[in-house]
Amino acid sequence: MFETTIDDMNPQLYGHLTESLFQSGAREVFLTPVQMKKGRPGVLVTAICDSARAHAVLERLFAESTTIGVRVRHEGRVELMRSVAEVETPVGTIRVKTAILPNGEERRVPEYDDVKRIAQEAGRPLVEVMDEIRSFLHESARTTA
Amino acid sequence: MFETTIDDMNPQLYGHLTESLFQSGAREVFLTPVQMKKGRPGVLVTAICDSARAHAVLERLFAESTTIGVRVRHEGRVELMRSVAEVETPVGTIRVKTAILPNGEERRVPEYDDVKRIAQEAGRPLVEVMDEIRSFLHESARTTA
Amino acid sequence: MFETTIDDMNPQLYGHLTESLFQSGAREVFLTPVQMKKGRPGVLVTAICDSARAHAVLERLFAESTTIGVRVRHEGRVELMRSVAEVETPVGTIRVKTAILPNGEERRVPEYDDVKRIAQEAGRPLVEVMDEIRSFLHESARTTA
Amino acid sequence: MFETTIDDMNPQLYGHLTESLFQSGAREVFLTPVQMKKGRPGVLVTAICDSARAHAVLERLFAESTTIGVRVRHEGRVELMRSVAEVETPVGTIRVKTAILPNGEERRVPEYDDVKRIAQEAGRPLVEVMDEIRSFLHESARTTA
Amino acid sequence: MFETTIDDMNPQLYGHLTESLFQSGAREVFLTPVQMKKGRPGVLVTAICDSARAHAVLERLFAESTTIGVRVRHEGRVELMRSVAEVETPVGTIRVKTAILPNGEERRVPEYDDVKRIAQEAGRPLVEVMDEIRSFLHESARTTA
Amino acid sequence: MFETTIDDMNPQLYGHLTESLFQSGAREVFLTPVQMKKGRPGVLVTAICDSARAHAVLERLFAESTTIGVRVRHEGRVELMRSVAEVETPVGTIRVKTAILPNGEERRVPEYDDVKRIAQEAGRPLVEVMDEIRSFLHESARTTA
Repeated sequence: MFETTIDDMNPQLYGHLTESLFQSGAREVFLTPVQMKKGRPGVLVTAICDSARAHAVLERLFAESTTIGVRVRHEGRVELMRSVAEVETPVGTIRVKTAILPNGEERRVPEYDDVKRIAQEAGRPLVEVMDEIRSFLHESARTTA
Repeated sequence: MFETTIDDMNPQLYGHLTESLFQSGAREVFLTPVQMKKGRPGVLVTAICDSARAHAVLERLFAESTTIGVRVRHEGRVELMRSVAEVETPVGTIRVKTAILPNGEERRVPEYDDVKRIAQEAGRPLVEVMDEIRSFLHESARTTA
Repeated sequence: MFETTIDDMNPQLYGHLTESLFQSGAREVFLTPVQMKKGRPGVLVTAICDSARAHAVLERLFAESTTIGVRVRHEGRVELMRSVAEVETPVGTIRVKTAILPNGEERRVPEYDDVKRIAQEAGRPLVEVMDEIRSFLHESARTTA
Repeated sequence: MFETTIDDMNPQLYGHLTESLFQSGAREVFLTPVQMKKGRPGVLVTAICDSARAHAVLERLFAESTTIGVRVRHEGRVELMRSVAEVETPVGTIRVKTAILPNGEERRVPEYDDVKRIAQEAGRPLVEVMDEIRSFLHESARTTA
Repeated sequence: MFETTIDDMNPQLYGHLTESLFQSGAREVFLTPVQMKKGRPGVLVTAICDSARAHAVLERLFAESTTIGVRVRHEGRVELMRSVAEVETPVGTIRVKTAILPNGEERRVPEYDDVKRIAQEAGRPLVEVMDEIRSFLHESARTTA
Repeated sequence: MFETTIDDMNPQLYGHLTESLFQSGAREVFLTPVQMKKGRPGVLVTAICDSARAHAVLERLFAESTTIGVRVRHEGRVELMRSVAEVETPVGTIRVKTAILPNGEERRVPEYDDVKRIAQEAGRPLVEVMDEIRSFLHESARTTA
């Protein structure tokens, strides 16, 4: 995990920085607004990656931002077992991620990009299509249980 | 609508301030973290109310906070037509708010407090019960449509 | 210490998530607004607990939120020595936490819940009662010193 | 100008909501993290548009979010006179926005999308290309002045 | 009241921008972190001033930031009656602001800059000196009441 | 690295707390707005220092804030090699920090305090002088390369 606070970079560049970090192998990137010295509204950049990608992510962080010092931390991670499968729904086929909770129950989450694609193709509001697909997944899980 | 930035109040008091404003008739109260002069992390308090309650809300804002100056603004408001009805669901009876969208479609939202009560009585995770009730509302809307 | 960023959960559920984490043994829970990929305003959930409660807190975090991966970190903690005692004040009896600073001085802090109860029973503004009690504690400390 | 606080929407949907509002004619859309009642980390959505597009933007805001009430406000706006021209730089042709400051001086700003395109085509860090283009614009302004 | 969102300015410059706006006559300036298009962590700058200073403040806002468009709004303001007087305390003479609440009670607030000066001259923690002075003001108000 | 969340301190005191931590040897101090229990808008204080200064920084953190418990963490840090030199620019002499990127390229950053001094002495907008100096550094780097 890499963290660096930045208080001298044009904010226009953060979108590209984030994309670059994902491309170089980061699993997760997020920005936290922080208040730094001398009244500066800075940004804390957090990038999380596997050890194998650490070198590439760090190099990109130095290249695509104005930082000159980055903090490094190793952290454990507990993840639910999960699998991805294609599911046919009334509005189209989407990928669904299924995670197994500690108590053995399943949680099914539709892939955002697939839901968005379907909403755009159908010219319908995303919030409505998302609701519909989540309801369908919920009902079909109940039925098969 | 009242707005005031506060940079000299013990943050412990905001919970009570918010409750007090609701009790005196505010329809909506929210807090925005802002950065004020001399490196102070302040809070912008926004309270929205009908004209009839403006005096009571303002008085309470002065009494329950450290502010000595409040900005006042009149704003228009566009609201969807809505109604509340009791609905029986597989997990219990809850109130459901129904709003009519500009295109004529309905949006049905379960009352949070009712869903929370059911989750607590059943000893089940709220996230799961919320999902179940939203799916039920979605399906029953579809069936009756 | 557990941390997880969440970008797909109904914000209504955070109040209950926070309460649940405290009930399962967390010492501290706080939420940080963060900016995640694809323009999503997410939330970083941080829960801190003793090792003995870690399993229970983690299980609850998975059950009551939509997260499927949680980061884990062991951190040291430096705490001031402290004690809690009941103190009679002009407005009523409250619990007061006394901490010993590194330089040997004492810092006395009234329990928020007690101050709030007194303010509500007296129908007085909390900000005023809090001020009064803090002043009393300050003066009585000075007198006995 | 439209404003609404939302505390019950899946944050995944904000990216699409923002895009939709721009497509329906909003000039500016931004999200502010706020703290709402019952411990909810909500989002204040602000959309600014010309009167001619107000109806379309409002309709989209209701369709693509979970809000059921939106605040409306008319605001004045002071804008610098500006023009856009294509400029040839050592790294490629880009659009440059020129604004006239109240004191008569010019401020020249490169179009972000053009700078990003050039950086990607050249496989160079965006922060570096941005710096280079801004320096070039600055120097060429000085020379012709 | 002026408001503008900025997403292309080096955050180092905000401290100076804020000072400049105060110098040109602003009564209040604060910064709110917001999330803008294309993943940019921007800043909403709010400057409040009397009509007489509006021209000077606006000119400064354009000169000392990168904005090219500023929103303008007239707002009402409700202020408590207040007066400032010098008060002798056990730790030194300070200015104290006294405001009259709607219910006739007084609220007395020490001037931050005076308290800070005393703390620095005495080489004592500011938090401790602030507490002491507030307690003194509270007690002396009670005694004379 | 020290971290503590604070939800019961007058925000006026943060400016002084931050300065005090820097004076006692912290390399970096920043504040993050967080949402704590019972609707409190708290602040996460992060102070980073070398091991040699840890004791002094910690003592100051306890003395100048209301915290009674601080989290401690050791973190690695990757820094670019850097040097500082005085550079003559058309607007005056300033210190310039030069960092060597992993790919061997140089990045030159003007010292903020020097740029601000020059802008103030010249009575010119800081944003303009900063732009001018950065352009000069960029061009002179290019010429000598």
